[in-house]
Amino acid sequence: MILQDTIVALATPSGAGAIAVIRVSGPQAIEIVAPLFQSIKGKDLTKQKSHTLHLGHIIEDTKIYDQVLISLFKGTNSYTGEPTVEISCHGSTFIQQQIIQLLLRKGCRMATPGEFTMRSFLNGKMDLSQAEAVSDLIASDNEASHQIAMQQMRGGFSNEIAKLREELLNFASLIELELDFSEEDVEFADRTAFRELVNRIEFVLKRLIDSFAVGNVIKNGIPVAIVGEPNVGKSTLLNALLNEERAIVSDIAGTTRDTIEDELVINGIGFRFIDTAGIRETQDVVESIGIQKTFEKIEAAQVVVYLIDSPKLDAAGIQNIKIEIEKIKNKYPLKPLVILGNKKDLLSQDQIQKLENQLEGILLISAKNKIGVEDLQNTLLNFVDTGALRNNETIVTNTRHYDSLLKALEEIEKVKWGLDSNLSADLMAIDIRQALYYFGEITGQVSNDELLGNIFANFCIGK
Amino acid sequence: MILQDTIVALATPSGAGAIAVIRVSGPQAIEIVAPLFQSIKGKDLTKQKSHTLHLGHIIEDTKIYDQVLISLFKGTNSYTGEPTVEISCHGSTFIQQQIIQLLLRKGCRMATPGEFTMRSFLNGKMDLSQAEAVSDLIASDNEASHQIAMQQMRGGFSNEIAKLREELLNFASLIELELDFSEEDVEFADRTAFRELVNRIEFVLKRLIDSFAVGNVIKNGIPVAIVGEPNVGKSTLLNALLNEERAIVSDIAGTTRDTIEDELVINGIGFRFIDTAGIRETQDVVESIGIQKTFEKIEAAQVVVYLIDSPKLDAAGIQNIKIEIEKIKNKYPLKPLVILGNKKDLLSQDQIQKLENQLEGILLISAKNKIGVEDLQNTLLNFVDTGALRNNETIVTNTRHYDSLLKALEEIEKVKWGLDSNLSADLMAIDIRQALYYFGEITGQVSNDELLGNIFANFCIGK
Repeated sequence: MILQDTIVALATPSGAGAIAVIRVSGPQAIEIVAPLFQSIKGKDLTKQKSHTLHLGHIIEDTKIYDQVLISLFKGTNSYTGEPTVEISCHGSTFIQQQIIQLLLRKGCRMATPGEFTMRSFLNGKMDLSQAEAVSDLIASDNEASHQIAMQQMRGGFSNEIAKLREELLNFASLIELELDFSEEDVEFADRTAFRELVNRIEFVLKRLIDSFAVGNVIKNGIPVAIVGEPNVGKSTLLNALLNEERAIVSDIAGTTRDTIEDELVINGIGFRFIDTAGIRETQDVVESIGIQKTFEKIEAAQVVVYLIDSPKLDAAGIQNIKIEIEKIKNKYPLKPLVILGNKKDLLSQDQIQKLENQLEGILLISAKNKIGVEDLQNTLLNFVDTGALRNNETIVTNTRHYDSLLKALEEIEKVKWGLDSNLSADLMAIDIRQALYYFGEITGQVSNDELLGNIFANFCIGK
Repeated sequence: MILQDTIVALATPSGAGAIAVIRVSGPQAIEIVAPLFQSIKGKDLTKQKSHTLHLGHIIEDTKIYDQVLISLFKGTNSYTGEPTVEISCHGSTFIQQQIIQLLLRKGCRMATPGEFTMRSFLNGKMDLSQAEAVSDLIASDNEASHQIAMQQMRGGFSNEIAKLREELLNFASLIELELDFSEEDVEFADRTAFRELVNRIEFVLKRLIDSFAVGNVIKNGIPVAIVGEPNVGKSTLLNALLNEERAIVSDIAGTTRDTIEDELVINGIGFRFIDTAGIRETQDVVESIGIQKTFEKIEAAQVVVYLIDSPKLDAAGIQNIKIEIEKIKNKYPLKPLVILGNKKDLLSQDQIQKLENQLEGILLISAKNKIGVEDLQNTLLNFVDTGALRNNETIVTNTRHYDSLLKALEEIEKVKWGLDSNLSADLMAIDIRQALYYFGEITGQVSNDELLGNIFANFCIGK
């Protein structure tokens, strides 16, 4: 029903620029735009071929709105799978508004968030996980998250799921066929082959579920807690790390980057640095709360950097630090920890020797003089399991997919148990159906309005 | 020389959106993009027709950058008059940067501000005043400035100038021909017809020069000084005026508007409201400075609104106001003045009568209850000479054009004086040449690198 409307929205970022693109999609797209468009060459838009460009003016009566370039997509040969017209106009917000208002008056409806992509899904141009990847792709701000979204958009993930689903569906049919002949005690579904399939599905599901830990941090950035007293040089450290990055970015004039001081990308992997107050033992109630908060942040982090103001350390200071580090290690034995001594430039050779002897594995740097910053970057990267990324394996980044995969695995385990316990076909069929349902949820073969509403509400308008 | 490079820039506003457009223009545009583009249908980009659209991926070696839509413009058949490729990619700033960096590595150069439009000018696709109108068009934020920029971009202004220049050039040739035959005392140029032309040129130049006053305020918004004590309801008044406007704008979900509290558009004309402190007589030195500033603001304004907190006025108050209004009228006898009595809703019929008798022409409104707001809008609009706008006459908005027109007029007056005084052809020829020079400056038939540099430096990159 919804596909009967012709929708319109600005597809480019809001604000002024050289050009802006207004997207019109739906059964009437070409019929609505054509009478408003006066081609420079006097062409009738409705008679032009798909995938062609046309220069002209948007005119209503005698009022000229703008000189525009029209991109024409006919039939199902478009992003949405519907007739589509893209109007490339001058990038003034006034012109954008005027043209969109004109199109609304002429019978278009304002698109809801993600409606173009939802139509693409509903018209079978992509499955649901691919549609979700479009949003991830636009949100991606580093190499790793971009690659994963790209792979998902190209169907890497859903192909794997769809293939397993088909194999499982095949067995499901055979088993349900057995039900029709239940009197005769026949087995159409080869139990050995079926067990082999179930094992394979279990293996794949577990791998995908495991990949979510990596996928999730790559998508959202790897949280790194920096533990250290105030004034040990935390902001200098962040700036030193950021500058390395900025040197690359600033090569391109005109491409601005939102500066979020505590987020940075190292070798294509996003890191989020979380400042903490330190964990020095104290009687003070207020400070005790601070320590508790520090521990909470360490718990949420993937990596802990313990930052030390090296030149200030006497023997007692080193002893204190050893105690604090032990405390963290005892509490979080598996959490990667970097002991980072800042201000190396102010240390004597003797002091360096002493620190390296006393604090095992300490990494000495000078954030101010950019000494050792690269070593720190490499150390951080080593903590990230990029194996799956390197091997181009499918990585799950979407919480919805993760949930469906967990539920599917639960059902598959039931099926497996059923096979082991010689469960009757009718009972087993229920579990198989349920597993199929969760597979279908991921690719969208099973969907409902509420699910779609939730997914596309997070898209921007115009996508 | 400069046209040998192939340039690249983001053409859509910076930031994330559904899509972004990267524009590549120059002799190598297609050759640079083609090897990086893998068409879905396996097509070779270099062999495709102009003005066609192609779906595919930007790929370097095995790395997939994005799924993109390519717009192809071949030969001189583009905005710039050069081979052009527009890459419509997913609107993530990361992807935009990645693709632009890739193109820079493959031989493109980052475009300078306005370079695409400058190339369009240099390649003869538009004259200089049309190129300047592109920038005005993008900056236009209301109906009137949009219409003027549109008219100028479509050549309305330069056609008029170019036509006069051609006629003048014709006479210049004839007069210079006389110089070759100066011994023989012949007159090739019919002095009567020439005088008629010079008169016509003078008339047009004066009209265009006069139009600048209107053009300039329409382009920059009409400044309105609001004179009134604090708390008489200035901000309520502005909000009342703004709300009328917002009701239209908010119809379009997703089109956001920068809220500049003191700028608003009434019937397509922009107004800029300037708050002033009032001009009440005082002994206080600080306040005296305030009064001086108020007068400066009134001087800069096109219209003055004198705002009164009507319910608070007793006989003495009315007398004070009369004195203040007289003071403004004496100082600026030609400046349109609106006496605006706010809070009409709190007045008795008797009070209304008294105010209207005592303060001639007072307009009573209630900003809070939106009573009389429309009357105020109409009053303001009546002060704007929109005659030229309505009659679709050419309006000059550009200070550079205004300067050239003034200089051209000066030379034309000299020519006229020369005709009246029977000046010798050789001296007259110099003045005519000079007038022609200033005409040519406007359309760009006369230009130099410095002039072009100044003009296009104000453009955004990507335009």
